[in-house]
Amino acid sequence: MSIHYTTRLHQAIKAKGTPVLVGLDPRFDQLPPDVLAHARELHDDPVAVAASAFEEFCVRLIDVVAPLVPAVKPQAAFFEEWGPDGCLALARVIRYARKQGLIVICDGKRGDIGTTAEAYARAYLAGADPLAAAWQSDALTVNPYLGRDTLEPFVRVAKERGAGIYVLVKTSNPGSASFQDRKSDGTTIYRHVAQVVEELAVETDEQGYGLVGAVVGATYPQELLELRAAMPHVPLLVPGYGSQGGAAADVAPAFQQDGLGALINNSRGINFAFKAKPYDEQFGPRRWEAAAEAATKQMIADLAAHTSASQLIHPAG
Amino acid sequence: MSIHYTTRLHQAIKAKGTPVLVGLDPRFDQLPPDVLAHARELHDDPVAVAASAFEEFCVRLIDVVAPLVPAVKPQAAFFEEWGPDGCLALARVIRYARKQGLIVICDGKRGDIGTTAEAYARAYLAGADPLAAAWQSDALTVNPYLGRDTLEPFVRVAKERGAGIYVLVKTSNPGSASFQDRKSDGTTIYRHVAQVVEELAVETDEQGYGLVGAVVGATYPQELLELRAAMPHVPLLVPGYGSQGGAAADVAPAFQQDGLGALINNSRGINFAFKAKPYDEQFGPRRWEAAAEAATKQMIADLAAHTSASQLIHPAG
Repeated sequence: MSIHYTTRLHQAIKAKGTPVLVGLDPRFDQLPPDVLAHARELHDDPVAVAASAFEEFCVRLIDVVAPLVPAVKPQAAFFEEWGPDGCLALARVIRYARKQGLIVICDGKRGDIGTTAEAYARAYLAGADPLAAAWQSDALTVNPYLGRDTLEPFVRVAKERGAGIYVLVKTSNPGSASFQDRKSDGTTIYRHVAQVVEELAVETDEQGYGLVGAVVGATYPQELLELRAAMPHVPLLVPGYGSQGGAAADVAPAFQQDGLGALINNSRGINFAFKAKPYDEQFGPRRWEAAAEAATKQMIADLAAHTSASQLIHPAG
Repeated sequence: MSIHYTTRLHQAIKAKGTPVLVGLDPRFDQLPPDVLAHARELHDDPVAVAASAFEEFCVRLIDVVAPLVPAVKPQAAFFEEWGPDGCLALARVIRYARKQGLIVICDGKRGDIGTTAEAYARAYLAGADPLAAAWQSDALTVNPYLGRDTLEPFVRVAKERGAGIYVLVKTSNPGSASFQDRKSDGTTIYRHVAQVVEELAVETDEQGYGLVGAVVGATYPQELLELRAAMPHVPLLVPGYGSQGGAAADVAPAFQQDGLGALINNSRGINFAFKAKPYDEQFGPRRWEAAAEAATKQMIADLAAHTSASQLIHPAG
């Protein structure tokens, strides 16, 4: 049995003193000019240019954030858009992040039945042993629509390997109500999913948390409050801070009193800080890494000022 | 505007006179010995062995089924388990299947929000122009849990490219009831998903069918009957025939009177026919292709005998 995922995660959060999770969202059209120029010196083929640029961009971003935050979340879709070359770049980026001591959550939102689900789990969940999977992630995001029995293969592989999963419960998009908010037996579908996630977390509990986490959007603060209470053993992954409109006050309910229990994700707001106020004027595209660093530090300070994440820096006596 | 997906699909179904969809599910532990031996002559690294064996197995299986059936469905998870090499094998297998005139439905069950969903769509949906995507699929399976707004980027890209999507509505696994069968406003969640799928199909209709299809398991024949009626403009993808227990009588409700409107999938029952009765004794592992051919022909005959797919061979005057 490997070291439990959430135990490793919380060690990393305490070591860095912040629950900031930096998304790695390489969007080709938004890459800094120097990254694109390097890739074009090395390659002619547009696919090779993109894969090479994604790798350099993410590696340099990891160098910026590794001293500051506990974890990163690469978005699989942006890499897959560039085919097998993109998939290889994703594997290299994940490996590099792990080497820098970061927890890596692969955002692949996978889900399938039986042995097919197990194949996805084995592909992405390396957990405590980086060599156990092709994409050496500590955790993977998983879609629950197919049913509880389809989550179990992910849980089984995660348990064996000291890895974790984050099940989509209430997502951050404007239309997440379509099916997630439908009422059934007096409560919403996302609450029914939350109940299954809490049960799976209790079954895999160590030091108060299971290895089964939940994705709950910062864009729905009332639901976040409700879901934190409904899933006391579940580590949360909270997207939607920053570019999607969530603020520190909105994500405050995600945390327990000791500042643990949640990671708050920011992707575009850090990756492409150099394109947005106030960093665009201060740094601009040439100093994109300095912009990303400033945006990361600003987010760390924002969470410390307005949430119990402050406890991670100054634990209550 | 490219040629509509379902128009191309129905041309292929009519040309072959059957709605059989052959799943490509390369499971390493079950590969025929000659395929493994070839891969081990060419490679030492276990990942390279697996990727090479998957490619040879699928290519030879495609050679067997291409004269007989209109479409194949590679399961992305089994390829991804072997990392970027597996992803490259998947791309080659898809390309080869297209070259043999087959419609290719990539079973990736993807789903994400906004521009991320669009990245998945651009990665997998080539549609009428094989060079438009890294994995040159005609269609992709998609998970609806995140909400209607997250299906729209897939529909937009599919429409541009003459591709299609199949949205998970009622899946074939034993636990699919967990969330899909929950009652809300007097009906099930899968019926609410079905309503959205039917709306998107009507919006993209050509000759009676939209480019938005639905996955409905053969293991739930009553629900299949109900869903065929609820989604008259939706092409169905029906898994669960054979190994999962569905029989021809169970899938009969999936078809319209003219035998169109559905593909019936069989993966293990064809891929690994050489391991199961009656083909194991008749053919054995050395003649695995003959076993796959016999199993495919048997399924074609079974559907023609017990469903309106018979109309594809002898159209009613």
